[in-house]
Amino acid sequence: MKQINIGLLGCGTVGTGVAKLLIESSSVITSRLGAILNLKRVADIDIETDRGVQFPQGVLTTDAHTVVNDPDIDIIVEMIGGEGIARELILGAIENGKQVITANKALLASQGNTLFQAAADKGVDLAFEAAVGGCMPIIKSMRESLVANQINSMTGILNGTCNYILTKITDERMPFEDALSEAQQKGYAEADPSLDVEGIDTAHKIAILTALAYGMNINLPNVFIEGISKITPLDVAFAEHFGYRIKLLAISKNKGNQVQARVHPTMIPFDNLLSSVNGTVNAIMVSGDAVGDIMLYGRGAGMMPTASSVISDAVDIARNLMAGTSQRIPALCVQKEHIQNINIMPMDEIETHYYFRFAALDKPGVLSTISGILGRHDISIQSMQQKGRKTNGSVPVVMISHVAKEADVRKALAEIDHLDVVSQPTMLIRIEDEKLD
Amino acid sequence: MKQINIGLLGCGTVGTGVAKLLIESSSVITSRLGAILNLKRVADIDIETDRGVQFPQGVLTTDAHTVVNDPDIDIIVEMIGGEGIARELILGAIENGKQVITANKALLASQGNTLFQAAADKGVDLAFEAAVGGCMPIIKSMRESLVANQINSMTGILNGTCNYILTKITDERMPFEDALSEAQQKGYAEADPSLDVEGIDTAHKIAILTALAYGMNINLPNVFIEGISKITPLDVAFAEHFGYRIKLLAISKNKGNQVQARVHPTMIPFDNLLSSVNGTVNAIMVSGDAVGDIMLYGRGAGMMPTASSVISDAVDIARNLMAGTSQRIPALCVQKEHIQNINIMPMDEIETHYYFRFAALDKPGVLSTISGILGRHDISIQSMQQKGRKTNGSVPVVMISHVAKEADVRKALAEIDHLDVVSQPTMLIRIEDEKLD
Repeated sequence: MKQINIGLLGCGTVGTGVAKLLIESSSVITSRLGAILNLKRVADIDIETDRGVQFPQGVLTTDAHTVVNDPDIDIIVEMIGGEGIARELILGAIENGKQVITANKALLASQGNTLFQAAADKGVDLAFEAAVGGCMPIIKSMRESLVANQINSMTGILNGTCNYILTKITDERMPFEDALSEAQQKGYAEADPSLDVEGIDTAHKIAILTALAYGMNINLPNVFIEGISKITPLDVAFAEHFGYRIKLLAISKNKGNQVQARVHPTMIPFDNLLSSVNGTVNAIMVSGDAVGDIMLYGRGAGMMPTASSVISDAVDIARNLMAGTSQRIPALCVQKEHIQNINIMPMDEIETHYYFRFAALDKPGVLSTISGILGRHDISIQSMQQKGRKTNGSVPVVMISHVAKEADVRKALAEIDHLDVVSQPTMLIRIEDEKLD
Repeated sequence: MKQINIGLLGCGTVGTGVAKLLIESSSVITSRLGAILNLKRVADIDIETDRGVQFPQGVLTTDAHTVVNDPDIDIIVEMIGGEGIARELILGAIENGKQVITANKALLASQGNTLFQAAADKGVDLAFEAAVGGCMPIIKSMRESLVANQINSMTGILNGTCNYILTKITDERMPFEDALSEAQQKGYAEADPSLDVEGIDTAHKIAILTALAYGMNINLPNVFIEGISKITPLDVAFAEHFGYRIKLLAISKNKGNQVQARVHPTMIPFDNLLSSVNGTVNAIMVSGDAVGDIMLYGRGAGMMPTASSVISDAVDIARNLMAGTSQRIPALCVQKEHIQNINIMPMDEIETHYYFRFAALDKPGVLSTISGILGRHDISIQSMQQKGRKTNGSVPVVMISHVAKEADVRKALAEIDHLDVVSQPTMLIRIEDEKLD
């Protein structure tokens, strides 16, 4: 039986999952592929720790370069992460004519254009299903299933850590800091959680998906990013009052000659299915001109779910190798000559609905001062809520705006936050609710 | 530029959608495929009606056989439906060495094994993404994305008509007949709705998916089927009281040397995401050993969503033709020599939780008689609810059972329904709720 040799670089959590599947699920994989995916070499700086996997003798090595240079290896699986050695090894593998699989969203988001070009020049594939959404087949869906659709928008919960924390803040009215430390205790958040909670990981993912959706290059620097660290149980309670839940959303919209690509906490109505996606799970809603809305839902991280996606890439590539073909599908969905130069809209130009929570002193005239400033900046309010409970002499006053422009909102809030009668910076949360329009 | 010629058989709703996409979305398809999908011929008995599509001259014909026999045509798209002429034309196209795409779940469910074998013998593909779940990429996910997983179970809402009717019964407490006629008025249900409301269409789909999931032949005759026509607003109200919603579910479970495959109205808890899938939408939850649960959600029917899936198959096949390969992926997931002889468990052997609604006369001792019969058949009750409102002298008494065996339940209900103090046949609805176990 035909054998496809795999070299695994990096045997951390997901790398171990990949090894596990290749070894322990080989019969199911072989029954479907009609060939053997053989784990030939595994490189890691630590080859002593017991990972609960029975590696055949001679498989483990500390020298990643010998794996990349092994002429018998067909597919290199890069599971090291980061943008340093991982990049070098991927480029080395491509240079050696090997097919490459990675889950490295940070690297792809920042240098994907170069890496995909290198792979195309060499006629090999650089597959990355596991880079976005863990086990959800979102990359395959974008590149293959939705091939007849113009994509109108994508809205996703793409970071399990943030979704876990927001679920805790929502369900248990827990402050952010407590929810974060619980996530850390459970192993859902890193010791340095900033990549997750500041929205950066989500931005990596939506940068990649935005390129796939609209046939453009990856453009991470222009993705707007705002994290979840300022979300309070009070905002969650107000959101519920208005029929919303707060999620960290990645939002990407096709606006004709421009696109939007932004990551921020967002209020969505209860009847939006994404509002019911809780805990560490990911989900993404994609809207296409033929399909309408489709949604994928699944574990966005973790050893085995992510490894499952890596193996689906490996089987895809093995099928191509067995058919004597490669570059069967263009990495970024469209053929190179069709990649368009599309800008990401500056955040200032975004128009949406807003939730404002003002910390206003409980004095006469305050409300009219705030409303006056909003009005002068073309921001009109469609509902208002003032809760009686005073905190440090100030009362939270909450307003939901009609559609307003981000630039106007920023100017208005800068003025309002300078008022003597406003004791804290105003909380702003954007709202996605078609029924409001 | 390379051109792949397509012959379309049947230009009804979905056929028209396919033609529309091939003609009106050709630039987006070409930008992704790097070749032109050319609609060369369209056969339909009616070539006079204006379908809102601008067919190039000479494309339309009433003679399907000339299309199947046209040597220039690479891919035949069968959109006629039914098990007569459609079968003959598919086999003719295969015999002519053409690739075939169909959305014909009834035909695949009853004769798929023969058709897939014919395609394999001839070395061509018979693709069928649009046969299950409309635009949800469930076939691709099963055959490609989940390739490293042993599938443990599938639970799906696979018929938009039934889901629309059940949503109406639930949200508006509308009787079944009224909800059905509203569905008919809106074009969601056929004049003869039995294929949908009796669960047969859903059974076709789960028969296909069950084969894909466990590497077995399609076995429609052994799928248990129960429709939704007996569901009443009263049952919906009781379901809500216990924290459930009623959905027509297709359920398929891997039980080792046997599998379950069944279609019936099912109570599921509010926190099961499927309970929030309303209206004509479809969704399916698939549980795999590596991924855990993943869910796909999207429109399960309709012109453009279904056509989108047909085109995704056409692009897949075109990519294979351009690479000079075919049969890249086995139709039923596993290589032929790995197809196993697995039985579908007889319904009598199923063990699950049950909801019973007894129409008991309001007399002393009735409850103890009923409980006594249940007890003698090893059915123990974990909660009971009796609503005061009398209908025709009888009171609805509702019970939720612990895990019980279907055969025992049937025997017990046969006895109970013969009691003088029971005025109507007992309503039985199965429950899927892990928390009950």
